[in-house]
Amino acid sequence: MIRSGSCAGVSEDVAMPCSVGWGPVFVDLTRMVAVPIVTRLRFWEMYMAVTQSTTAIVPTRNEDYPEWYQAVIRAAELADNSPVRGCMVIRPWGYAIWENIRARLDQMFKETGHVNAYFPLFIPLSFFQKEAEHVEGFAKECAVVTHHRLELGPDGKLRPSGELEEPLVVRPTSETIIGAMFARWIESWRDLPIKINQWANVVRWEMRTRMFLRTTEFLWQEGHTAHETREEAWEETLTMLEVYRRFAEEDLAIPVIPGEKTPGERFPGAENTFSIEAMMQDRKALQAGTSHFLGQNFARASGIQYTARDRSRQYAWTTSWGVSTRLIGALIMTHGDDDGLALPPRIAPAHVAILPIIRSEADRARILEWCERLAADLRSQTYEGRRVEVVVDVSDENAGERNWRWIKRGIPVRAEVGPRDIAAQSVFVGRRDRAPRDRYSQSRGEFVAGIAELLAEIQRGLYERARKFREEHTHTIQSWDEFRSFFTPANPEKPEIHGGFAWSHWCGSRACEQKVNEELSVTIRCRPIDFGESEPGRCVVCGAPAQERVIFAKAY
Amino acid sequence: MIRSGSCAGVSEDVAMPCSVGWGPVFVDLTRMVAVPIVTRLRFWEMYMAVTQSTTAIVPTRNEDYPEWYQAVIRAAELADNSPVRGCMVIRPWGYAIWENIRARLDQMFKETGHVNAYFPLFIPLSFFQKEAEHVEGFAKECAVVTHHRLELGPDGKLRPSGELEEPLVVRPTSETIIGAMFARWIESWRDLPIKINQWANVVRWEMRTRMFLRTTEFLWQEGHTAHETREEAWEETLTMLEVYRRFAEEDLAIPVIPGEKTPGERFPGAENTFSIEAMMQDRKALQAGTSHFLGQNFARASGIQYTARDRSRQYAWTTSWGVSTRLIGALIMTHGDDDGLALPPRIAPAHVAILPIIRSEADRARILEWCERLAADLRSQTYEGRRVEVVVDVSDENAGERNWRWIKRGIPVRAEVGPRDIAAQSVFVGRRDRAPRDRYSQSRGEFVAGIAELLAEIQRGLYERARKFREEHTHTIQSWDEFRSFFTPANPEKPEIHGGFAWSHWCGSRACEQKVNEELSVTIRCRPIDFGESEPGRCVVCGAPAQERVIFAKAY
Repeated sequence: MIRSGSCAGVSEDVAMPCSVGWGPVFVDLTRMVAVPIVTRLRFWEMYMAVTQSTTAIVPTRNEDYPEWYQAVIRAAELADNSPVRGCMVIRPWGYAIWENIRARLDQMFKETGHVNAYFPLFIPLSFFQKEAEHVEGFAKECAVVTHHRLELGPDGKLRPSGELEEPLVVRPTSETIIGAMFARWIESWRDLPIKINQWANVVRWEMRTRMFLRTTEFLWQEGHTAHETREEAWEETLTMLEVYRRFAEEDLAIPVIPGEKTPGERFPGAENTFSIEAMMQDRKALQAGTSHFLGQNFARASGIQYTARDRSRQYAWTTSWGVSTRLIGALIMTHGDDDGLALPPRIAPAHVAILPIIRSEADRARILEWCERLAADLRSQTYEGRRVEVVVDVSDENAGERNWRWIKRGIPVRAEVGPRDIAAQSVFVGRRDRAPRDRYSQSRGEFVAGIAELLAEIQRGLYERARKFREEHTHTIQSWDEFRSFFTPANPEKPEIHGGFAWSHWCGSRACEQKVNEELSVTIRCRPIDFGESEPGRCVVCGAPAQERVIFAKAY
Repeated sequence: MIRSGSCAGVSEDVAMPCSVGWGPVFVDLTRMVAVPIVTRLRFWEMYMAVTQSTTAIVPTRNEDYPEWYQAVIRAAELADNSPVRGCMVIRPWGYAIWENIRARLDQMFKETGHVNAYFPLFIPLSFFQKEAEHVEGFAKECAVVTHHRLELGPDGKLRPSGELEEPLVVRPTSETIIGAMFARWIESWRDLPIKINQWANVVRWEMRTRMFLRTTEFLWQEGHTAHETREEAWEETLTMLEVYRRFAEEDLAIPVIPGEKTPGERFPGAENTFSIEAMMQDRKALQAGTSHFLGQNFARASGIQYTARDRSRQYAWTTSWGVSTRLIGALIMTHGDDDGLALPPRIAPAHVAILPIIRSEADRARILEWCERLAADLRSQTYEGRRVEVVVDVSDENAGERNWRWIKRGIPVRAEVGPRDIAAQSVFVGRRDRAPRDRYSQSRGEFVAGIAELLAEIQRGLYERARKFREEHTHTIQSWDEFRSFFTPANPEKPEIHGGFAWSHWCGSRACEQKVNEELSVTIRCRPIDFGESEPGRCVVCGAPAQERVIFAKAY
C-alpha cells in the first residue's frame, strides 16, 4: 500500500528513491521506470503515463506472437515450466479457470444424461497390439512403465528394478480400457445406453511442447458411450458437439465453427469425426473439442456385444468425445491482449478485484472495513446463477502494481477504493474490456446493483469482438493464386501475422488436401455444419467440380 | 415394472413361470427363489418372506468379513476389478460418492485459505536419490517409466522403445516436485504462506491390494504448505487435522480419534505426524487421514528458502496432509450391513429413490407423472445447503429387485408409489437405517415437508450407532494378560471378529511397540489429543512407568 510520507507504496524490495526535477520519484526496479510521488489518482495516471510507451506484456502480439503467448501465461501466473520435460505446473489462477471449465461442462454432461466414473491410469501393452497390427508404420509416442521398484545399486545410484512381465502404457486415451469394461458390463439391450464420462490426466510423448496447447501430460475429459442403435449413437455424437459449441460460445465467449473432419483428419477407427474450430488472434485455427461417431468399429475391437430385443447378438454403437486444458490456450489467444489475459466473466475465477488505497496508517482499518463490506455486498449479488466472486487485494504493493497484476490476470472488473472514494461513497472502476486508463467513478450503490449487468455486458462484448475478428479474417476465396497469397507471409524471413480462414471449394480428393498441407502448411479444418452459402463450384486447388465449400486454415 | 396379467414384472431374462400350489409364481433365476404373484404390497412382503433366510449380501460380516466387504462393493456397484493388476475401476455410484467427498473437502480447504493447483504426474528419478541415500535398505515400490514409445518389433510383437536418459517415477506422492516449485516461487517472507492443495491420482506398487483400501493407483488430495514461522506451520498442521475430524464425523458420520503417531509410525521426514483413526465393524482401526508437521526438514531437502523480515535467509516451515479414496472403504466398513451399503445422507449421491409400482399399462403415464411431480417437490427442498437429490427408478424390474438394488446401494430413503398410494395421496417409505421390512405409509405432504429432518435424523443415527459400536469395543486394559487375550481370537483356525481398541499405558519405548506388533499384529494407532482420562500408570507391555495411555489396535 502507499505509506504516508515515504516510498509512495513502491515496495521496498524493488524501489529506490531518486529525483528527476519534478518532485521526488522512485525508480521501480522491476520496470526500470521513474514513478513520481503524487496523490493516489495522479500517481496512477502518471505511472501509466510514464509507462505508456510499453505494454504490460513484452513482446506484443505483433512483435512476436508465440513469445507473447508464453509471456501472458507467466504474467497471469497461469502455469510454469516444471523440472519434468514437457510437463507444466498449472498454478492456482490457471487451475481455478480449469475448475470452472470442469464444473460447467460437468453440469452440461449430467443434464444430457451422463455419469462420471474413473478408469485405471495404466493400460496393458497387449491392448495396443491389435491396433498396431492394423496401422502401417505404427509408432506411438507413449510413456511406458517397465519396472515397479527403485533400488540403490552397488554404485550408490538409484535404478529401476523389478521388471514387469508385461509393460504398462500410461493412458494416452482410455478407449481400450473402457471398451474392455463395457464388454464386461453390457449383456442385453436393457443395459444400454451406457453414457460415461471421465475427468483424467493423460500422457502423449510430444516432441515439441507448448504450455496448455501441447504438453506431455494434460488434463481432459473423455466421454464414452454405447448404444443400441446407429441412430441413437449418431444423435449422441451431435448432441455432444452441440454441448461443446454452446460451452465455447456461451461460457468461454469463443466463437467456433462446428463441422465434420475430412476422412484424412478422422480419429483412427471413427466413422465420422466432428470438431469445433476457433480462430486465434494470429488467425490460426485451434481445434477446441472433438466428438467421434465410432459406428460398430470399436465395439468389434473390444467385443462389446449385447443381446438384442429379438434375442440376436449385436455389436453396440459407440461414441467418444473430449476437450482438454488446451481450452485455456484458446482462451488466452482469443481474448488476451498486449496487457495480458482477459477472462470472460462466466469462466473467471473471480469477477471483481477490490484494491484498497491506504495512504495513511490511521485510515487503514476504516478503509479495509469499507472494502470488506463492499465485497460482502457484491458477493450477495448473483451472476449467471453463481455468486459474484470478489477478491480484496491487500497485498503490500503500490496501487499501480496491484492494478497491473489484475489486468494481467484478466479479472473482468477492478474497483479502487481510497479515502476520497469513501467520502463520496463511490468506487473507481476499471473494466478489462477497455484500455487500462479508461476508468470511471461510480456510486457504490449503482456499482453493486449493476454488477451482474456489467459482467454480462463484458461477456457479450468479448464474444462480439472475437466474432468480428473472425469475420474480418474469414475470406471467401475462389482462385488458387488468391488462396496461395492469402496463406503466404509477405516477408518469409520474419513472418508476420497473416492468413485466416479461407472459405473455399474442395473437390473432396485427398491429393488436393495434401497439396495445400505440403505447400502452404494449410489443412482443411472442417466441413461446417451450418456456416453460410455453400453452392457447388470448382475446387480451389485443382479446379475440378466441387459440391461444397470447406474451411481451410493454418492450425495449432 | 409389474405388467398386467403376466410375468408380475420379474424381468423376462431371469424369470420363468411355474406353480407351487398357492397360486402362480415365478422363479427368479438370479436369486433362485419362488415369488408368488399377488398384490404389490403382498408381493413385496412375500418376496421378503421367501428370501428372509438370506441377506442381500452373502457372506455376512460374521461369516467372512473380508469377503463381505468385497461383496458389498460388487452389490452396490461401487467399483470393479480391472484388467490392470491392482487397479480398480470406480463405477458411477462409487465415483459420485468421491465427487461429494471432494466437493465438501474442497470447500473446507478453501474456507481455510487454500487454493488448488496441479503438478506433474512424473518425477525425475534423481529427485529420489537423496532420500535413498538416507534410508537404509531403500526399496521403493513405484511405477517407473523407462521408455517413451511403442514400436512393432520384427516378430510382429509390440515393444517399448525410445529409452529415456533419466527414468521417470509415477508420483507416489508429490512432496519433491512441489518442493522444487516452492523453492522457485518463494523469495521473501512476503511470498508466505503458500497454501496449496492438489487433487490427483498417485501410484504405489502394492503387493496385496484390496479395493478402496489399498490399490496400486488411487485418488487423493495432498495439501502442501510453506510458512514463515514454526508456530504458523504447527497451527496449520492441527487446523487440517481438525478439518479432517469434522469432515469424518459430520459428513461421513464416522467417529474418529484424532491424535499423534508414535515416532516409529511417522511419515519419513516429518517432525510430527497426526492422524484420525476410525474403528471398522471388524473392530480393526483404519487410518482415515494424516497431517504432517515437517518442520524445516523438507525445506532443507528442497531448498525452500526465503529472505526474512530481518533480511536473513531462512528455511521455510512446511506441512503436508492428505486423504484418499480409502475413505470410501471406511464408509463401507462403518455403516454397511448384511444388506449392503448404507450411506450417510450428507455424502450420498442421491437421498431418495422413488419406485413407481405400475401394475397396469393403463396406469403407467399417470403413475409416472405423479412420481415425477413428487420428485420435483422433493428437489425443491434443501438438506444441508444442497438440493435434495432424487432418483426415479423406472427400470424394467420388479418392485422387489428395485427395492433391493437401492438397499444394497445404501440410498438413505426409498419411497414406493403404487395406484393405492396415489389414491390415498401417500407414499410407502423405507429407511436405510432400519430393517428392509420395517416400512410405513406416510401422507405425501408430510413426507415432502419432513424430508430434510428425516435425512438429518438418519445422519445422526448412523453416527450414533457407529460411536456406540466403538465405545462398546474400546476397553481400558491394564494388564498384559488381558491385553493379549483381547487381541487373540478364540479359534485361531478360523479367526472370528475380535479385539477392538485397547486404551492402555505405554512407556514410550520402541521395544514395547515392536513387541505387540510382532506377537499380536497390534500397533499403537495414536496418542489421542483429547480422548479421556490418561493418568500416569504402568506400561501394559513391560510394566515400566508410563506417562500416558495410547490407543492400541489391529489395523488396516
